Amino acid sequence: MSCDFLALAVPGVQKLSPYVPGKPVDELARELGLDPQGIVKLASNENPLGPSPKALDAIRAELGEITRYPDGSGFRLKAKLAERFGLQSTQITLGNGSNDILDLVARAWLAPGRNAVFSQYAFAVYPISTQAVGAEGRVVPARNYAHDLEAMLAAIDENTRVVFIANPNNPTGTWFGPAALESFLDRVPQDVLVVLDEAYIEFTEPGELPNGLDYVARYPNLLVSRTLCKAYGLAGLRVGYAVSSPQIADVLNRVRQPFNVNSLALVAACAALDDTDYLEAGRQLNRAGMAQLEAGLAALDLHWIPSRGNFLAVDFARDAAPVNQGLLQRGVIVRPIAGYGMPNFLRVSIGTEAENARFLEALAQVLRG
Amino acid sequence: MSCDFLALAVPGVQKLSPYVPGKPVDELARELGLDPQGIVKLASNENPLGPSPKALDAIRAELGEITRYPDGSGFRLKAKLAERFGLQSTQITLGNGSNDILDLVARAWLAPGRNAVFSQYAFAVYPISTQAVGAEGRVVPARNYAHDLEAMLAAIDENTRVVFIANPNNPTGTWFGPAALESFLDRVPQDVLVVLDEAYIEFTEPGELPNGLDYVARYPNLLVSRTLCKAYGLAGLRVGYAVSSPQIADVLNRVRQPFNVNSLALVAACAALDDTDYLEAGRQLNRAGMAQLEAGLAALDLHWIPSRGNFLAVDFARDAAPVNQGLLQRGVIVRPIAGYGMPNFLRVSIGTEAENARFLEALAQVLRG
Repeated sequence: MSCDFLALAVPGVQKLSPYVPGKPVDELARELGLDPQGIVKLASNENPLGPSPKALDAIRAELGEITRYPDGSGFRLKAKLAERFGLQSTQITLGNGSNDILDLVARAWLAPGRNAVFSQYAFAVYPISTQAVGAEGRVVPARNYAHDLEAMLAAIDENTRVVFIANPNNPTGTWFGPAALESFLDRVPQDVLVVLDEAYIEFTEPGELPNGLDYVARYPNLLVSRTLCKAYGLAGLRVGYAVSSPQIADVLNRVRQPFNVNSLALVAACAALDDTDYLEAGRQLNRAGMAQLEAGLAALDLHWIPSRGNFLAVDFARDAAPVNQGLLQRGVIVRPIAGYGMPNFLRVSIGTEAENARFLEALAQVLRG
Repeated sequence: MSCDFLALAVPGVQKLSPYVPGKPVDELARELGLDPQGIVKLASNENPLGPSPKALDAIRAELGEITRYPDGSGFRLKAKLAERFGLQSTQITLGNGSNDILDLVARAWLAPGRNAVFSQYAFAVYPISTQAVGAEGRVVPARNYAHDLEAMLAAIDENTRVVFIANPNNPTGTWFGPAALESFLDRVPQDVLVVLDEAYIEFTEPGELPNGLDYVARYPNLLVSRTLCKAYGLAGLRVGYAVSSPQIADVLNRVRQPFNVNSLALVAACAALDDTDYLEAGRQLNRAGMAQLEAGLAALDLHWIPSRGNFLAVDFARDAAPVNQGLLQRGVIVRPIAGYGMPNFLRVSIGTEAENARFLEALAQVLRG
């Protein structure tokens, strides 16, 4: 006598397919009976450096306070971000990872009858968050796997409320420069919110890509989404932030759960923002690892999409699922991206020198059959 | 030339007023120039015991992994909950605190044209989550500050999708027994989801209140919301869970952000669930503190609402705001609940013996004028 609660859900939710994360090490170990210690995970674009010692110290100092609620206003972290980037605290919205920021944007401005524009091969959370609130997702065909910003402009109509763009883009690693960004921002209608997702920006050298924060004052419809989960090494703790006009931040802060960011994340993020050595070491490791992987892939006669992230999408020019299976059996986890419409590719995160070597060795074995 | 992004937001969000949390100690210290060490906070129903040592050990052991994403499926925590409470893992949804669970329910089943029924003086997140998705909140007048379950039944109509009930209720501490709950569940239409919020249930003795988990198999439209933030002492880490039919859990897991619960919360929650000594010590401290506060309030000729939570709503029979101000100036933070339509009340959380004494002493001074 039980009812169908899926059929009773709101229409957008009924059609949702959940996000498929990278396979956790534990899960592969359980499935294949492997020793977790021997497994290499290059599946989730995590920072291979290990945690910032400063962040760990800050967490340890806060442990006695975990029975207390976090500061729901994030006063100290917002002040730190404001100081670091020359902003006002009122421009900042904190998120439980930048996933939360993207979700808040969808909940605030999208609904049935409205649409969001994003690129083919863009981050899976854009369509999921759009679908969850019953809005239309307008997928604009990519150009050489990269955003076609001109085509995205053309896809905007009177019902468009949000455009999601990413620089660099995940899972492709593609990017655009300042001229393309400015030309795009100049022509997006002012009542359309542009979400510029810069989750991976800190892996690039300063000046290598346009810095979204430089444009927020000039374009009041621009929101820059950032995270501490990647280059700052805090994926497990979940902390991201948005920078926008104070009005946009005010709207997001109404929708935000009051304690969306946990107290250890708040203190760890403050410390990580101060740990410039860590950030620089991560950049260097990424640069070296990118060169190592590119050389290794070239030696295997493979192609990949040039990337400005901490990952590479490798093109096997045939269904990559068997390659992925072979890697898993050898204890190497990378990310299949068939769900992104890229069944011939695997995305590999850049790891330590030893992890990259393990991946290349396992890949060579798999390709030899 | 900037647009009004509040006016562009979806109608439900435009009308949202954000949740007002308890004032953080740091904030009061900044405002009044007080030493944070000397401030007593009895404002957020936090566990005064301090953290579980087992939870702290589990966190310390996990610190090296914070660069990794959490296990998005929460495999180990769900297995632990399933084992502890005799459930299947498929019945469990994990939340970033139980606030997240309540929000997920609203997003999955509420929308414009649908309504949610809840009581006057019920937890503020029920109306906020309902409003955020543009649904109607039907507030049913309370009876002696408690849920009037008969009137709530009568308020359900063909557009009702969710009923929120809490046992015990926050901020009033009121409760209902098994006969009232069963009689209610027997008569709620089967296509209406009943959310039974048991955030404070672990402060009661086993058997003192009905255990919602005992009813989930019998009522497929029942969801029980629980948290590790209160009696288990993990408020800062944000972790809650829902127990329901597997189908309802499946719908919630589609809406849930894939990494909504951070990795330190996952391991701390597993450890806290095993720390039965901690839970029992918290219950004892709460019982003793409740008696201490009741005796102290009676000595001051004050009245309060009898409570089964870890807090008391004290009735000053006149505007309580000046009393609250007096307490703040003496470094004691309690919670004004004028926002709940109870301007004559202050809610005080039960603290340690010393904290309760500080509160009673400060209150006596304030009342003397």
